[in-house]
Amino acid sequence: MQQPIIQVINPNTSQAMTHTIAEAARSVAAPGTQILATCPEQGVESIEGHFDEAIAAIGVLEQIQQGKAQGASGHVIACFGDPGLLAAREIASGPVIGIAEAAMHMATLVATRFTIVTTLPRTVIIARHLVHQYGFEHHCAALHAIDLPVLALEDGTGLAQRLVRERCIQAKKEDNSGAIVLGCGGMANLAKELTEEIGIPVIDGVTAAVKLVESLVALGIGTSKFGDLAYPNKKPLSGSFARLG
Amino acid sequence: MQQPIIQVINPNTSQAMTHTIAEAARSVAAPGTQILATCPEQGVESIEGHFDEAIAAIGVLEQIQQGKAQGASGHVIACFGDPGLLAAREIASGPVIGIAEAAMHMATLVATRFTIVTTLPRTVIIARHLVHQYGFEHHCAALHAIDLPVLALEDGTGLAQRLVRERCIQAKKEDNSGAIVLGCGGMANLAKELTEEIGIPVIDGVTAAVKLVESLVALGIGTSKFGDLAYPNKKPLSGSFARLG
Amino acid sequence: MQQPIIQVINPNTSQAMTHTIAEAARSVAAPGTQILATCPEQGVESIEGHFDEAIAAIGVLEQIQQGKAQGASGHVIACFGDPGLLAAREIASGPVIGIAEAAMHMATLVATRFTIVTTLPRTVIIARHLVHQYGFEHHCAALHAIDLPVLALEDGTGLAQRLVRERCIQAKKEDNSGAIVLGCGGMANLAKELTEEIGIPVIDGVTAAVKLVESLVALGIGTSKFGDLAYPNKKPLSGSFARLG
Amino acid sequence: MQQPIIQVINPNTSQAMTHTIAEAARSVAAPGTQILATCPEQGVESIEGHFDEAIAAIGVLEQIQQGKAQGASGHVIACFGDPGLLAAREIASGPVIGIAEAAMHMATLVATRFTIVTTLPRTVIIARHLVHQYGFEHHCAALHAIDLPVLALEDGTGLAQRLVRERCIQAKKEDNSGAIVLGCGGMANLAKELTEEIGIPVIDGVTAAVKLVESLVALGIGTSKFGDLAYPNKKPLSGSFARLG
Amino acid sequence: MQQPIIQVINPNTSQAMTHTIAEAARSVAAPGTQILATCPEQGVESIEGHFDEAIAAIGVLEQIQQGKAQGASGHVIACFGDPGLLAAREIASGPVIGIAEAAMHMATLVATRFTIVTTLPRTVIIARHLVHQYGFEHHCAALHAIDLPVLALEDGTGLAQRLVRERCIQAKKEDNSGAIVLGCGGMANLAKELTEEIGIPVIDGVTAAVKLVESLVALGIGTSKFGDLAYPNKKPLSGSFARLG
Amino acid sequence: MQQPIIQVINPNTSQAMTHTIAEAARSVAAPGTQILATCPEQGVESIEGHFDEAIAAIGVLEQIQQGKAQGASGHVIACFGDPGLLAAREIASGPVIGIAEAAMHMATLVATRFTIVTTLPRTVIIARHLVHQYGFEHHCAALHAIDLPVLALEDGTGLAQRLVRERCIQAKKEDNSGAIVLGCGGMANLAKELTEEIGIPVIDGVTAAVKLVESLVALGIGTSKFGDLAYPNKKPLSGSFARLG
Repeated sequence: MQQPIIQVINPNTSQAMTHTIAEAARSVAAPGTQILATCPEQGVESIEGHFDEAIAAIGVLEQIQQGKAQGASGHVIACFGDPGLLAAREIASGPVIGIAEAAMHMATLVATRFTIVTTLPRTVIIARHLVHQYGFEHHCAALHAIDLPVLALEDGTGLAQRLVRERCIQAKKEDNSGAIVLGCGGMANLAKELTEEIGIPVIDGVTAAVKLVESLVALGIGTSKFGDLAYPNKKPLSGSFARLG
Repeated sequence: MQQPIIQVINPNTSQAMTHTIAEAARSVAAPGTQILATCPEQGVESIEGHFDEAIAAIGVLEQIQQGKAQGASGHVIACFGDPGLLAAREIASGPVIGIAEAAMHMATLVATRFTIVTTLPRTVIIARHLVHQYGFEHHCAALHAIDLPVLALEDGTGLAQRLVRERCIQAKKEDNSGAIVLGCGGMANLAKELTEEIGIPVIDGVTAAVKLVESLVALGIGTSKFGDLAYPNKKPLSGSFARLG
Repeated sequence: MQQPIIQVINPNTSQAMTHTIAEAARSVAAPGTQILATCPEQGVESIEGHFDEAIAAIGVLEQIQQGKAQGASGHVIACFGDPGLLAAREIASGPVIGIAEAAMHMATLVATRFTIVTTLPRTVIIARHLVHQYGFEHHCAALHAIDLPVLALEDGTGLAQRLVRERCIQAKKEDNSGAIVLGCGGMANLAKELTEEIGIPVIDGVTAAVKLVESLVALGIGTSKFGDLAYPNKKPLSGSFARLG
Repeated sequence: MQQPIIQVINPNTSQAMTHTIAEAARSVAAPGTQILATCPEQGVESIEGHFDEAIAAIGVLEQIQQGKAQGASGHVIACFGDPGLLAAREIASGPVIGIAEAAMHMATLVATRFTIVTTLPRTVIIARHLVHQYGFEHHCAALHAIDLPVLALEDGTGLAQRLVRERCIQAKKEDNSGAIVLGCGGMANLAKELTEEIGIPVIDGVTAAVKLVESLVALGIGTSKFGDLAYPNKKPLSGSFARLG
Repeated sequence: MQQPIIQVINPNTSQAMTHTIAEAARSVAAPGTQILATCPEQGVESIEGHFDEAIAAIGVLEQIQQGKAQGASGHVIACFGDPGLLAAREIASGPVIGIAEAAMHMATLVATRFTIVTTLPRTVIIARHLVHQYGFEHHCAALHAIDLPVLALEDGTGLAQRLVRERCIQAKKEDNSGAIVLGCGGMANLAKELTEEIGIPVIDGVTAAVKLVESLVALGIGTSKFGDLAYPNKKPLSGSFARLG
Repeated sequence: MQQPIIQVINPNTSQAMTHTIAEAARSVAAPGTQILATCPEQGVESIEGHFDEAIAAIGVLEQIQQGKAQGASGHVIACFGDPGLLAAREIASGPVIGIAEAAMHMATLVATRFTIVTTLPRTVIIARHLVHQYGFEHHCAALHAIDLPVLALEDGTGLAQRLVRERCIQAKKEDNSGAIVLGCGGMANLAKELTEEIGIPVIDGVTAAVKLVESLVALGIGTSKFGDLAYPNKKPLSGSFARLG
């Protein structure tokens, strides 16, 4: 069985969050799996809306190409909006998994309904779009925001973490959900502890995505190169995009 | 009533297609409406997949900001995938309309079911995603591709135009659809003639979007600045993205 | 470009409401557009349920035929239930737009989710059916009623108007919606003021429908005369219906 | 147990079709059930589109009121478009069942998927709307038209009947459906024979609706008079509608 | 007209509940209809989850075969989860109706939206699955549990009955539903009284299913024996399942 | 990291198919993962419909309990109808994965649309129900049957295998799908070869499910024991079901 190199891409430029994500990824990787944690040099420090996502998507594409050059067998997009997911699949040959889809898929395998807990109210709508696109509307009981910006998860006060915990406890009671999906890559380190405390699966997408990429690599299944995910039609890329060519 | 300046953004870098689009836009603009036809300096020459769209989205955002600086009252994204639509709405204050949504909305107002005719098979899936996202699954009877690249519409041979025409005729017969939506900004100049020849509304999104922006401006309705379309949270943009700040 | 005559049909027999609607329509019509505001001579004074709608539909059909005889280029059905819409499209050649569909379409172009505020609880279900039929279930966050009959909007006390205003303010807060759709033709004159006060687009269907008809006329797009919206099969109409022949 | 009087309303003015429908109704009525077969004096001779349905709805309402005056315990609307159904429920106290809904409900109880065979292509879209509204999209495998007008079923040549038969046989083979729904009140007399010949349930809505009304009456369940189906708010009805007051 | 023998199967082994169900069934059966109330000898005493349902399904299948041997014309599965419904249809020739589907179908015929009131929170999800599968998501306004086990309905204290009553009253007010569906076979005897007291149809599935079976038998419609409901492919059944062969 | 014991349950009693499944499972298991391949002693030799599934579900439940006693960390239900899945989750503590859901989830991660190829036409409807229940209707382009019984896959002639191969090739061409899901546990050994030959991912659920169970175990995520998947309420199990207690 192939020993995979899994590239875990933090689509924002925060080194602290890249570190949190890398640690979470390594904590679940199989022996022999190499985690290549990266983030783009250019872009935004945190991703909190459609505009930020559009910028982050370019960083993701650049990172995918670098990851391929470094021999990555598969890729994780470690931002809950799964920015650039389908574009990334077009240029990749191995599997590419977004952490939102990873967490939602896993949640439906262990509970009949799940709740999503995310950071800002404005990212709730992005999560809702993904739920709709992935087909999980009947599985998603509710979406909640703690109403703090993404970087509050890295400010060292623990406030964001406390609010996530409270929201999860409340969600179990009110939504009658069997599982909770953590709606931000920066919450990756909270899943295990909350699972134990709250008594239902609290699922983080970073670790879930790492295992899904490992699984697909082991199964010999890469991204389909037929149809809309085939490699992009070759054409000149001008200006700052030339580096993506 | 305000005399609007409507920015029509061709998200690819093809001057020929920008010209086609500008002419279509001007042919329907109200007296007094100024059409500002633009395209990004950097990007891709044609948009034929998710990867191309991710790049085009950045060009759209850049153009929106230039359009705002030039006093544009509203904006049209003249590529059938509506690349960067929600991100563009976040940074705009006036309305932003994608040509795919414009054509589909108009089609549902004059027929109970419509068919989409586009260029490449791989863009069919993108159109299908939009149909799903916009809520028109029960209104869209079928999607067809002529299986030629986007730029074939600008090659001067007329082959692409002939194939579009044949596909539209066949679609009316087979899909029993009351209207046809042309699935590419480069087909903007075909709508009027095909409508007459085929005897059902053949709808182009560029002209439809211009009228929708004019309408919203006249109604005093801009993009909602509350919730997920509020202006992006301020944060540093690094590298080549700094120009979007 | 053609100077359109737009027939704005109030499907109930209230002259006061016809006046309110006509004024709203004229306030947004393009220079050169002629507004032909009409209401049926026979029918109901206000439309508050399925029964009232069935009666109003006949009035709408009669008015459409009179409008055609007077050279109308397009038609607006100015009651939020869009009574008789598809039947009206069968006998019309120009576009026919209902104010419910007009307001909902416009709302989805400037916000990702909208709330509907209507009069009676029993009309909520009618609005819900339209949301379902038009495909906007994922765009409609909630529907609310102020629990007053339609004609309270014309009683001069301002109570209904105050309740609409309060419900809109509450809806923004509770539903997290980016836009509000006013669910009654008699609220047409409230949109502009509420938009400014509440700070999100508050959309009235009468004005929205006028601009959509103008747009379709300018685009040369009429109602599709192929398929289920083709002119009705000729057959004798007996009794009081003979006048519709 | 109450001996019900069931009013079977043919919404068009064809005496021949009223006769066909009455016979079908009587052939399945329980001993003691009285069938009151009626049709409006004014209206259209056959119902083949939205316009015809709008007119027929008024006839249905008038008939419902006459039926109530005659002591009817429940009502059947014997046209496959179920014209005026919700309006009729508002003014009725007993159950009101449309034959389209009756046939579809019954079909889902004996097969996992059904096919609808109707007359004109333009009525296919009406049936499709009903399928959508009643929630049977996952149960309806296909809809077909024999492409003959409704009255061809009464022309004595048997052509329409032969085409229905052929379409049913083909539908079983092609759609892999376990049941067929006959999409016209005028086909009521074909169901039994086709069921035997084709070997799958071929369901007619007239007979199905009669049994559903009988069932509801026996259960003591009438139309809900709470919410949107409560009796209409009292208001003056002017002109030819005064008779509905 | 055939005098049907209707087998009413209580899928659990509780004699008390079988008695309640039999009485309800007989109270609505037509003169001449014979009710054959049965329950399996082996299985579970009450059905409160997926595990219980899997066991009950075998009992249902065994009972269906015994019912066929006794000349039953049709069958009712008198547990709100409709356990074994499709499997039962495979081996039956007459109609097989589950009480959940029966109650929901009837509810949509007399109200535009209904509420379900059931016993345990964990059975709410089962009811939700059925709503989804039967296509009634737009018709079901809400689902509530009284949070007592199924057998509390047979404990003689009346507590469960009081809680059901309170929940129904609350549901009418809060959900704005026009009808209520009782979500347990053991509530069969409450429907009539609650309907009168609360003033909206409160529908029990046992009585509803009996009338639907009677209706189908009278119409000459059995379960489709074409496609996925055809008799099972013959194959050896080993061990304790041999009795099902 | 825990070395998991994964129980792979063939829900039918065919030793040959259990062997095929076990080999497939072992071919992808991680080093250290122990595969415990089992099948029930009693039941049916192949599963080709709802009746067979109801019987197989009991075998699955029995096997789950034996697997728990043997220390299994998780369970695979290796029949494409996922028989007994939710009931099995109720009694398990570790994850339980059906091969249909496993294959479908994996397919959506590497292609935007997939096609299912199964054995008998009557199992197509079962697969369709699962697609609906799991939320993958927009991802499933088509379902096809080779029209041979399940055991033809074990008859040594290779006919079934040839037909599967032909159907997959045709499906790629006609459905424009990016991936194919093999719709039977007995096809587990065909996936790898077909993937290479056809050039798109051909996904087998047995291997996919094994990797998903491994992943969930590694993540420390078991089946949610809150809500409808909590352990069954304790109650006496009588007769041949006593062994499940």
